[in-house]
Amino acid sequence: MNGTHTNGHANGAVNGTANGDATKYKNPSLQVTEDHNIKLVDAPIEEPGVGEVILQVKCSGICGSDMHLWKSGRIGSLEVKGDCILGHEAAGIVLKCGEGVTNLKPGDRVGIEPQEPCEQCFLCMEGRYNLCDNVKFSGIWPDNGTIQRFKRHPAKWLYKIPDNLSYSEGALLEPLSVILHGIKGANVRLGQPSLICGAGPIGLVALAAARASGAHPLVITDIDAGRLKFAKDFVPHCQTYQVNPKLSPQENAKEIRKMYGDDEYSQPASVMELVIGVGRPVMNNVPFMHLSLAEIDLKFINRYRDTWPAAIQCLSGEVMNLNKLVTHKFPLEKAIEAFELCADASSLSIKIHIVDEVDATL
Amino acid sequence: MNGTHTNGHANGAVNGTANGDATKYKNPSLQVTEDHNIKLVDAPIEEPGVGEVILQVKCSGICGSDMHLWKSGRIGSLEVKGDCILGHEAAGIVLKCGEGVTNLKPGDRVGIEPQEPCEQCFLCMEGRYNLCDNVKFSGIWPDNGTIQRFKRHPAKWLYKIPDNLSYSEGALLEPLSVILHGIKGANVRLGQPSLICGAGPIGLVALAAARASGAHPLVITDIDAGRLKFAKDFVPHCQTYQVNPKLSPQENAKEIRKMYGDDEYSQPASVMELVIGVGRPVMNNVPFMHLSLAEIDLKFINRYRDTWPAAIQCLSGEVMNLNKLVTHKFPLEKAIEAFELCADASSLSIKIHIVDEVDATL
Amino acid sequence: MNGTHTNGHANGAVNGTANGDATKYKNPSLQVTEDHNIKLVDAPIEEPGVGEVILQVKCSGICGSDMHLWKSGRIGSLEVKGDCILGHEAAGIVLKCGEGVTNLKPGDRVGIEPQEPCEQCFLCMEGRYNLCDNVKFSGIWPDNGTIQRFKRHPAKWLYKIPDNLSYSEGALLEPLSVILHGIKGANVRLGQPSLICGAGPIGLVALAAARASGAHPLVITDIDAGRLKFAKDFVPHCQTYQVNPKLSPQENAKEIRKMYGDDEYSQPASVMELVIGVGRPVMNNVPFMHLSLAEIDLKFINRYRDTWPAAIQCLSGEVMNLNKLVTHKFPLEKAIEAFELCADASSLSIKIHIVDEVDATL
Amino acid sequence: MNGTHTNGHANGAVNGTANGDATKYKNPSLQVTEDHNIKLVDAPIEEPGVGEVILQVKCSGICGSDMHLWKSGRIGSLEVKGDCILGHEAAGIVLKCGEGVTNLKPGDRVGIEPQEPCEQCFLCMEGRYNLCDNVKFSGIWPDNGTIQRFKRHPAKWLYKIPDNLSYSEGALLEPLSVILHGIKGANVRLGQPSLICGAGPIGLVALAAARASGAHPLVITDIDAGRLKFAKDFVPHCQTYQVNPKLSPQENAKEIRKMYGDDEYSQPASVMELVIGVGRPVMNNVPFMHLSLAEIDLKFINRYRDTWPAAIQCLSGEVMNLNKLVTHKFPLEKAIEAFELCADASSLSIKIHIVDEVDATL
Repeated sequence: MNGTHTNGHANGAVNGTANGDATKYKNPSLQVTEDHNIKLVDAPIEEPGVGEVILQVKCSGICGSDMHLWKSGRIGSLEVKGDCILGHEAAGIVLKCGEGVTNLKPGDRVGIEPQEPCEQCFLCMEGRYNLCDNVKFSGIWPDNGTIQRFKRHPAKWLYKIPDNLSYSEGALLEPLSVILHGIKGANVRLGQPSLICGAGPIGLVALAAARASGAHPLVITDIDAGRLKFAKDFVPHCQTYQVNPKLSPQENAKEIRKMYGDDEYSQPASVMELVIGVGRPVMNNVPFMHLSLAEIDLKFINRYRDTWPAAIQCLSGEVMNLNKLVTHKFPLEKAIEAFELCADASSLSIKIHIVDEVDATL
Repeated sequence: MNGTHTNGHANGAVNGTANGDATKYKNPSLQVTEDHNIKLVDAPIEEPGVGEVILQVKCSGICGSDMHLWKSGRIGSLEVKGDCILGHEAAGIVLKCGEGVTNLKPGDRVGIEPQEPCEQCFLCMEGRYNLCDNVKFSGIWPDNGTIQRFKRHPAKWLYKIPDNLSYSEGALLEPLSVILHGIKGANVRLGQPSLICGAGPIGLVALAAARASGAHPLVITDIDAGRLKFAKDFVPHCQTYQVNPKLSPQENAKEIRKMYGDDEYSQPASVMELVIGVGRPVMNNVPFMHLSLAEIDLKFINRYRDTWPAAIQCLSGEVMNLNKLVTHKFPLEKAIEAFELCADASSLSIKIHIVDEVDATL
Repeated sequence: MNGTHTNGHANGAVNGTANGDATKYKNPSLQVTEDHNIKLVDAPIEEPGVGEVILQVKCSGICGSDMHLWKSGRIGSLEVKGDCILGHEAAGIVLKCGEGVTNLKPGDRVGIEPQEPCEQCFLCMEGRYNLCDNVKFSGIWPDNGTIQRFKRHPAKWLYKIPDNLSYSEGALLEPLSVILHGIKGANVRLGQPSLICGAGPIGLVALAAARASGAHPLVITDIDAGRLKFAKDFVPHCQTYQVNPKLSPQENAKEIRKMYGDDEYSQPASVMELVIGVGRPVMNNVPFMHLSLAEIDLKFINRYRDTWPAAIQCLSGEVMNLNKLVTHKFPLEKAIEAFELCADASSLSIKIHIVDEVDATL
Repeated sequence: MNGTHTNGHANGAVNGTANGDATKYKNPSLQVTEDHNIKLVDAPIEEPGVGEVILQVKCSGICGSDMHLWKSGRIGSLEVKGDCILGHEAAGIVLKCGEGVTNLKPGDRVGIEPQEPCEQCFLCMEGRYNLCDNVKFSGIWPDNGTIQRFKRHPAKWLYKIPDNLSYSEGALLEPLSVILHGIKGANVRLGQPSLICGAGPIGLVALAAARASGAHPLVITDIDAGRLKFAKDFVPHCQTYQVNPKLSPQENAKEIRKMYGDDEYSQPASVMELVIGVGRPVMNNVPFMHLSLAEIDLKFINRYRDTWPAAIQCLSGEVMNLNKLVTHKFPLEKAIEAFELCADASSLSIKIHIVDEVDATL
């Protein structure tokens, strides 16, 4: 029964157990290789440098971008040119602090911001550190990621999480951060209509965030009926629309508009398109004339900045509850199976968490 | 038992009944007089002009500004210089449409936006019609308000409300509009700390709106413990702080800051002060140096604009529920008693609604 | 020598004279026909309706969109389905006022805002009247434009111009309005780098506006060296870059970046792309990945709103001087020749003005 | 005649010469003392730490805040508790670089940003480093300022200036930075009316910046006719208004409004009050009701952030020319006389520069 999907939602039960494996590795890690394979191997246990800590990663999510790195060896211009530990959605517990660390101590439970910007360039200077060209990003070669037991990380990019947050919720702070950053300048607010295109993991977080922001009416679209059913269970106040591939984009759009009401109660909102998580480098058939006539702005975002504190408040203050998104959990030693499940489109998985329940010490 | 407060919350039960009175008046109206009295008298039933309708006001709230108009004969530079029907928080049903009305028909249930701007000046041209110098405002002399049975109103400033909204909720769209406008440019959003100073009716709507916007942590302050208890019941996720008049403003502020956490989970937000509903024309002891050092912007608002559609979505979409704010209901014929209760500080009333359950016809 | 280009700049001299023609027409008008022709014919002289005036158009510019309407019979979804007087960049003198006109009187010199929105829809209500679906636009069938002697126009959409503005400058308020609206939300300000792509008439107004806003360094690009020479004469503080069609877009971009300095004095600005005047309805090869990585927003605009007062101040306050853009002037009776010159790419014309120096009376 | 004012404008001529004094000091410095005196004494020549340089300060302006520190021993909560070298408006030449300095080398001419934030707190993290509580500010005790020959400064907060900027202009980058930061969020743009209250040095820079931003009409007010005359000479397109102390604020305001035109050409702008350089910690008689009715936002600023690059572009790109503001120049050895002149209200000085023309070496 290891690594198989049992009940659709991961109610705290981890799929599979680590049994004998637990002693096999000191620092088990899931690595992607230059030739498009993944492997579970022991990684060196590092020492913390100045301002750094060693933490035990207790929970780490799998992201669509990990699938890209595995299957195609790249995301955009970022290439896998050597073995690299994957993972960037994670939380853990501090085990050891390097010199100069003042904000953390061993035993602190933390959420991990997986980017380490240079703090020297003009973008860092302006506070837009997510755009830094010299950023080190966990899980992007050559920087090792979070799907390992013992991770070295700058203390500055760790955030203490309160007792009422689980490690699983600590790991969800990362996808939530994507959305918190994405909707910063958008018109997602009380009583304003919102439309979310795509009911994958990020679309679902966006849906929850839109509801938690008071946006209404709320419509989410997808081509897959199963995903829409999940969305409706997740946020009952939303409406769902299954994109009809036999209709033109204009015809689908017309059907969607109707869902905002064809009577006097409804009113179109200021329109702003938010492009999160670009699927391909170049897009064709962008309707410039339409965008001009309605003065629609296209906003593009790149990851996040300054979002962990707010994300923590959202979950600890019960503003949002994202736990239902975690449909599967695997122990760290079964990370390969977790990745295989994630790659299987028929699995209906939303978010798969790799957990490490071992009480590790250094 | 007429006009007395029974159970703290108005569960649909109207305080007092209209019995014999119902036949006494054709168009009962609550009027303020130049010499600081209020009276309930029959008002003329008007005919709708071009673009206007006659509606039966089914519910009308009492606002603190009505108390000012009654007791001091003015709000700022706006003076009561003759008899004037009060009331500007209302909903009703359309009875008769004047020439050129295309958006409404008899039988439509509507929320009332009580302002009618000139639509000619540069402020109206820019869409900031709430700042129009030539606005006609219901219940501000010489423009009659909503505490009457038959009100003439421009169809343009009426908004159909859906079946799942009561007339009482229709009347609450007005104070909700104040807050929707007030927080437009503010940083009230997911996981951001918010502080609301004052737990009166508008403060309570602000509190509900902040929670519905996902703001957290959320603190509301008042000098009165009873009001804070009401606030906590109304929005359980908030924290309350009772202002200590023996402490300096700085000391009170220090106590309030602690409530946002003295540990690493918390983080001060961008600070922006929102001044809603000015109590006096001129303010002393404004801490300019402090405002500068922290670059705090002071934002001032004047009523609302373009808020009814969003307010309707908030209530019909169950984004917010404001019904608990209505602590008392009186029939139209008992409007005098309603005003007297409102003027009685010991009544613990929050929002008093004057309702007209008669099925009126013209 | 009628209608020919003499000296590169129209120093007040009109190309050609109207001599005998002046008596031929009462209301000469330049009309486009459904079958892609233009003709100069007498048009009916209308009476002003309520809120309208009749004005004599003293100067009217030719716009690229007029060429589209002539040569292809459409702009986007707007089709020429019958005879229509062209022209929408104009100024004139009020001859006669209809009932209810209070802001103007005969003899007033005015700039013309060529759009008349419905003032009923939600977009008009929000002040975004330029997006109104029911707008009437001068020179777009079936609404007659400004290239005629006697034009009927709503008084509300006319703006008095001061004595120090010529009618030619009054006509330039329209293209200036496009730019004032376009740069409203953009980062065109003191000491911020700006890049303008395209040195046509609108690009040149943008260049002047960027300089007048204090933007620096300032680069303008075009594929045509002659246009760039004109740009450099027009705004000497700019740098020009001739796009090299043999290079890839990325390589051209790299060359342009160098012009902002490859040393420590320079610093890239916040990047925002402004799309003004869409050439085609759909765009391919839009670099989504690049836009995301740098969080570049694409802003699209549609004409203008609330811009005439500011445009008047810009020219009367000598903030900008656009007169050099008017390279040719033709009398109204020679409008056909003016259009033919405009259609001739070899003419090096920038902005052609059609003027009516007759002292007309009604 | 040393140190006296000769011709109203400092045309490159320094008031007084340093003659024999030049050999008296190795590192002459102007220091304020705890008991409200100033003195010119030799200061130690420091060694550059990691990331720091030693530069020769070639020009340093005197600011009103220096007068406060001298005469009252404080600005707000910042107190002079020991000897401290004054000065924070400066430019110089790099003499020696400490370890790890990569952006500068000896001989580089630089403008000095006088603040060194902690880069650790949440305000620094968000890019709002000017609000950092732990900032070190040149010339605020205990951090030595720029009125000395040899200053130690972090290389990160120095900006290379191009050859076409004088050291005097390099020093003017600081007051220009105050204004660039101050007007960032303001509506100072093409054809928009602007009002500047106060024609002191900062008001005059604001006036120049408003003109360079294309704002029009432009009015500047002061109580002093001499200052207004200077303003009109400095920016001829402005209008000036001498505040009449016999009139009420409302009456003065009415007179000022007239200057924006009482006819149809003019139109009030969006109103936003910008409070720069707070004179006293607490303000009385703030007209809250008026601010509300017109929805006027009060914006407060604290110094500047990210402004040097733009300030350099403004001056090197000839967007603005501030040289006329420098009415007096003194050699470093005559700094006491410069301060005495600045303290003399009858001197009509605007900006006094202390220059060091010695070719210093270490």
